[in-house]
Amino acid sequence: MEKYAYIGKDMKRIDTSLKATGGVLFAADLSLPRLLVGKVLRSPYPHARILNIDTVRAEKLPGVKAVVTAQDTCGDKWGVFRYTQDQQFLPTEKVRYVGEEVAAVAAVDEDTALEALSLIDVQYEVLPAVFTIAEAMAPEAPQLHEVYPGNINIHVQIEVGDLEKGFAESALVREDTFTAPEDAYFMAEPYAVTAQFDTAGNLEIWMPNAGPHLKAKPLSNVLKMPLNKVRVRKIAIGGAFGGRSEISPADVICALLAKKARRPVKIVYTREENTVATRQAHSMITRIKTGVDRDGKVLARDITCHLDGGAYSSTGPIAVSVPFLCMEQAYRLDNVRYNGYRILTNKPIRGMFRTHGRAFACGVDLQLDLLGQELGLDPLTMRLRNARQTGDYTPTKSFVASCGLTETIQQTGEKSRWREKFGKLPPYHGIGIGCNSVQTGFPMGIRGGSQALIKLNEDGGATVITGIVDNGQGNDHMIVQIAAEELGITPDDIQLITADTEVTPSDPGSYSMCETFIGGNAVRLAAQDVKKKLFKIAAETLGVGEKDLSARDRKIFVTENPTQSMSMAKAVRIGLSRNESISGEGSYWPNVDSKREWVKNPFGQLSETFSFGTVICEVKVDPETGQVEVLEVTAAQDVGYALNPKVIEGQFEGGIAMGGQGGMLSEFLQWHEGRVLNPTQLDYLVPLAVDMPKINNIIVETIDPNGPYGAKEAGMSVAMSAAQAYCGAICNAIGVDLHEFPLTPDKILKAIEEKKSKS
Amino acid sequence: MEKYAYIGKDMKRIDTSLKATGGVLFAADLSLPRLLVGKVLRSPYPHARILNIDTVRAEKLPGVKAVVTAQDTCGDKWGVFRYTQDQQFLPTEKVRYVGEEVAAVAAVDEDTALEALSLIDVQYEVLPAVFTIAEAMAPEAPQLHEVYPGNINIHVQIEVGDLEKGFAESALVREDTFTAPEDAYFMAEPYAVTAQFDTAGNLEIWMPNAGPHLKAKPLSNVLKMPLNKVRVRKIAIGGAFGGRSEISPADVICALLAKKARRPVKIVYTREENTVATRQAHSMITRIKTGVDRDGKVLARDITCHLDGGAYSSTGPIAVSVPFLCMEQAYRLDNVRYNGYRILTNKPIRGMFRTHGRAFACGVDLQLDLLGQELGLDPLTMRLRNARQTGDYTPTKSFVASCGLTETIQQTGEKSRWREKFGKLPPYHGIGIGCNSVQTGFPMGIRGGSQALIKLNEDGGATVITGIVDNGQGNDHMIVQIAAEELGITPDDIQLITADTEVTPSDPGSYSMCETFIGGNAVRLAAQDVKKKLFKIAAETLGVGEKDLSARDRKIFVTENPTQSMSMAKAVRIGLSRNESISGEGSYWPNVDSKREWVKNPFGQLSETFSFGTVICEVKVDPETGQVEVLEVTAAQDVGYALNPKVIEGQFEGGIAMGGQGGMLSEFLQWHEGRVLNPTQLDYLVPLAVDMPKINNIIVETIDPNGPYGAKEAGMSVAMSAAQAYCGAICNAIGVDLHEFPLTPDKILKAIEEKKSKS
Repeated sequence: MEKYAYIGKDMKRIDTSLKATGGVLFAADLSLPRLLVGKVLRSPYPHARILNIDTVRAEKLPGVKAVVTAQDTCGDKWGVFRYTQDQQFLPTEKVRYVGEEVAAVAAVDEDTALEALSLIDVQYEVLPAVFTIAEAMAPEAPQLHEVYPGNINIHVQIEVGDLEKGFAESALVREDTFTAPEDAYFMAEPYAVTAQFDTAGNLEIWMPNAGPHLKAKPLSNVLKMPLNKVRVRKIAIGGAFGGRSEISPADVICALLAKKARRPVKIVYTREENTVATRQAHSMITRIKTGVDRDGKVLARDITCHLDGGAYSSTGPIAVSVPFLCMEQAYRLDNVRYNGYRILTNKPIRGMFRTHGRAFACGVDLQLDLLGQELGLDPLTMRLRNARQTGDYTPTKSFVASCGLTETIQQTGEKSRWREKFGKLPPYHGIGIGCNSVQTGFPMGIRGGSQALIKLNEDGGATVITGIVDNGQGNDHMIVQIAAEELGITPDDIQLITADTEVTPSDPGSYSMCETFIGGNAVRLAAQDVKKKLFKIAAETLGVGEKDLSARDRKIFVTENPTQSMSMAKAVRIGLSRNESISGEGSYWPNVDSKREWVKNPFGQLSETFSFGTVICEVKVDPETGQVEVLEVTAAQDVGYALNPKVIEGQFEGGIAMGGQGGMLSEFLQWHEGRVLNPTQLDYLVPLAVDMPKINNIIVETIDPNGPYGAKEAGMSVAMSAAQAYCGAICNAIGVDLHEFPLTPDKILKAIEEKKSKS
Repeated sequence: MEKYAYIGKDMKRIDTSLKATGGVLFAADLSLPRLLVGKVLRSPYPHARILNIDTVRAEKLPGVKAVVTAQDTCGDKWGVFRYTQDQQFLPTEKVRYVGEEVAAVAAVDEDTALEALSLIDVQYEVLPAVFTIAEAMAPEAPQLHEVYPGNINIHVQIEVGDLEKGFAESALVREDTFTAPEDAYFMAEPYAVTAQFDTAGNLEIWMPNAGPHLKAKPLSNVLKMPLNKVRVRKIAIGGAFGGRSEISPADVICALLAKKARRPVKIVYTREENTVATRQAHSMITRIKTGVDRDGKVLARDITCHLDGGAYSSTGPIAVSVPFLCMEQAYRLDNVRYNGYRILTNKPIRGMFRTHGRAFACGVDLQLDLLGQELGLDPLTMRLRNARQTGDYTPTKSFVASCGLTETIQQTGEKSRWREKFGKLPPYHGIGIGCNSVQTGFPMGIRGGSQALIKLNEDGGATVITGIVDNGQGNDHMIVQIAAEELGITPDDIQLITADTEVTPSDPGSYSMCETFIGGNAVRLAAQDVKKKLFKIAAETLGVGEKDLSARDRKIFVTENPTQSMSMAKAVRIGLSRNESISGEGSYWPNVDSKREWVKNPFGQLSETFSFGTVICEVKVDPETGQVEVLEVTAAQDVGYALNPKVIEGQFEGGIAMGGQGGMLSEFLQWHEGRVLNPTQLDYLVPLAVDMPKINNIIVETIDPNGPYGAKEAGMSVAMSAAQAYCGAICNAIGVDLHEFPLTPDKILKAIEEKKSKS
């Protein structure tokens, strides 16, 4: 008999058929009786004082059921952290970006709602604005918030080892600056939220979210409602990528409208609103100075990074830290200094992004390539010389329990035939490599652990009750797979109750790649808990010891003599009729350092474990047009253990599309005075399936000591490494090191022409 | 400090404000996107063979989305018991009563649905029919089902002691026959059911029900679907009275329509349909022979009861048994014989009814009055001489753990000033007394026990997850009260997730008065389980022993020094952050005899405990019109312990309205050849609030050893006793013993005139 019935196998996700056939209800699909349409009035100015808002004409329009402004709010400022509370969801004093929420209406239909918006008269006093990091940091620059002098929102400073000594001992030192503009997250699903109150004042609210518990608590704070009267309910989610972690002004506004109108209200963002009024990725300017010895080993690195945070804090402290943390995990470093600054500008708010820190990671990797070039070491060798190893501590004192980075470098190298290709390709052909590493959850506050309940039903099936969210990555299937495996029943026997704050216990939410590691462990423990109870019943009935039993195929059987068995359903029924508990619970809190803080004390165990990945990319550049043709991508990741290889390969491919194909070749936001010029799918170039290159997927398993079945995060390290590999390959193809990302044809062509003119 | 914070106090039920202001969603209120209207075609004949059903024209009508007939069903016969499987929900061969389901349609609106019904062409061969017990039992009577020869559906036979000896030793014996026609249940809420399938084939279904788990299993059987794909969901319920226990043909039909139409479908019964196509109470003919000694003590009783069951078995075995069981619980009996027959007729189906067995109980009580009269003993004394006592065994071998019947007799006697009134009232004034007893749940199969889960939330509040149903009697409040008491938080801190088969664990459902006793115990145990976990945390934090702690007002404190305390919320947060379980579970299975069977072996512990009640009624009869004016009703019940006295008084008053005021004075169904002549509120006289007399409520507490806080069933024994008291009072007022119930003015007037003409 195989060790596992479901774990480790290619399984079709439980949600794919429904999603492919349109059978899934997303937030915008939700309909409720007497549902009103909510629409938001947004600031037309990047920076302006609000002098007056007159809603009288809008309120009188027939069909309008509610109009809300800042007067309907508690006026409090909100922030993810205690020290970043700076955002009012309907601002009372001034607006700070084009698109900021000013007022909202709920009406019987969309036309009426839009007409009502046009009837709201807002008087502004326009203020001078800043649109770039440089403008914001200029001595006389207009200030966005009094509490952030110089528009410096966050400053994270980390220094480890002896930097001076490191540089002094280096054989070679180089210093470069790299930049990248903002990306849109561009989820397939635009933001939508529906809120309804019952007459007892209980709020039910549906929206795409990375964690219902993550949303419910701040909503209860902002709405000044008891937490147990706020119910964030499950709904299918069409992508998150880091952008569904925080509450949205729309959530609060929708609830306020529903309360005032005494009817359910739904707000669905247009694509333009979705690009501007949900989060965006930070633009970044990174200066990196790296020193290496003659073997290519990095001896010292000094990094200064400025991030453009837009108008408010959002997840700023994390966003400033994570680009550095990922790279300190990936490559060994003894002497390092990091200064990260988040600067505020009069632009939309930036948050955590799936492939965050591109200008940072590409810079680190490109410098490795360039330093290696001078030392006569190819990029792959440079990575092997610096790769993180199991048992290491990172500079900020995280223990690395399992690390297969070296294997991913070696295996991608072999599969891509790196040695045969690097330096031996035809003109304008290039090959590049990138490595990265990500966390598997960093607990914040009391919602860092996950708890799961499992109730068995009289037919031998089970209901798993957990707060885990599926944002599209397959978490629902992961739950089913683990529960079926542990209980010895089939995926069909399992019903899920997930992501509903009223029913499901606490869970961190699907952020920072934690759901398999933390939530999966909780589900596994809950299943083991209830299985133990069933085994007790079965052991008595079969006259054997509990330890002699196994469960599979809906049967509990004597491991050594499988014909001696009873059905799971029978054991449940005996339990029911004997008043024995046939429910189980499990909870998992990752082993991290609770004293670690993002800004004040960024030292200690950050995450219980980390994933590591390598991508190698081979390209051909058209010297006439600057167009890049990606010939082949080879991706490998240490996923700990592959619970469902097919799903992991899907994650690799999605990551390459987002991180490499889109992130390095075509995706970026274009601006004019704080206005986004390319908010829609016509102008903002997200790669399509037909754009995708050939991809080789390699799964590396290190069996993490604490992951469920040894599993850890699956896919993010590939998504993060892709940009670096794409960048390396293009620079290799044209023989120029490019410092401004993404590498669009105009920049490539310019570089080729400059190089030609120099030679 | 008082012993309890919430238990034992008059509390406003959590649902009353919402219900009073229309804020509650009943099944007929439910709306879903793309909802279709379902309508059922019913048999116009009491007995007929179905020759052909042509639905072509109906299917072609624009707006019709589905038409279903027996061809869409599995064809299986369904029944509550293995030996009563005789009902097809859309019959294939013949119809057996006027109103039986034949076909159904789902259409975009009601008009279209009704027009479509008119386009369905059914060809019948009309068969001879039987409408009364006598007709059904006649030698050559048409037979309804081959499996029930002579139309005898169920025969329950119980014999205990030595009947002959008992009668031989009796000083006085009398034998009488009593009859009562059918009642309608007449819930305030007509039946309504909504069904929808998702594209994965999962069924969600909402309907008023006495227990979602009770409904889900048979639905899964009849629809041939796995149980875990059938989700019976919570909805507010407007009355059950025993009539929401079984699945309804409408449930199955609605699901079939929804499946075929691929859209949600709602069926809402008209009042006429509700009267005919939901359950009705059995009509009954009871012959009772009772022997007493000179002190009025019953020495022997022989009872034969025939019940008209209508066309199918329904809960027949229980319905035949319960009238006898209630009375054997109420009064001591050593020598007794019972023969109960359920006879099938071509009339709608009869089920369990809240004040079931009126002709039975009134007969027993009236005989006691008449026997007492001959012995010179007043009715109250007769009750005291025969009253059941704590520690007794009933004839069918149920141990009586707590019994306050004597106290209820004494206290109602005092409060009503029985001694001053009986025999001393003016002409046409009368006073009567009745006693009864009911069970607190009789587990059937594996759904006899209740399980509850409680999850604590980070704000210190709790979510209680239980299958308990609130049919209107206040069970939701009972759950909240118990959970708040045990956890030491406030009712506002508690959210309920109840009565949803997918989320909530197994529960017997709200039938046979079991929810407080069984479900309440489970909730209490779950709360104690999680409290123990919190106390462990608090004990460590406060540096005391777990046993030194108490919880109240959202605080955990040292019992001897309440200032040494911590908030519940803090304890929960510590638990969350330390990965300790903050969920609890409880399950309760009542101590009953699992070998007891309704027909084959009706001996052994039936229910874990029983409630006992007495009602005294004082009336004035108008000799010119036969109209009865009820001057005062005094009701007492041994409820074990009064969890919420106000709610219990409400139950007493509702019971008197249904059992006495309606059941004995005005309510009964009128027939013509199997057709109900008075199905609506215009013709079927349910008493209104203005009709109600002055009521004195007396709560007797015996502190049941196993009930939660000593509580047991609250209200049903009063509801059952009311008819007996009303009957006794009227007979006492006019000096004639009446044997045909209810006692409507025409019967009373006739009796007065006959008595006058005789004298």
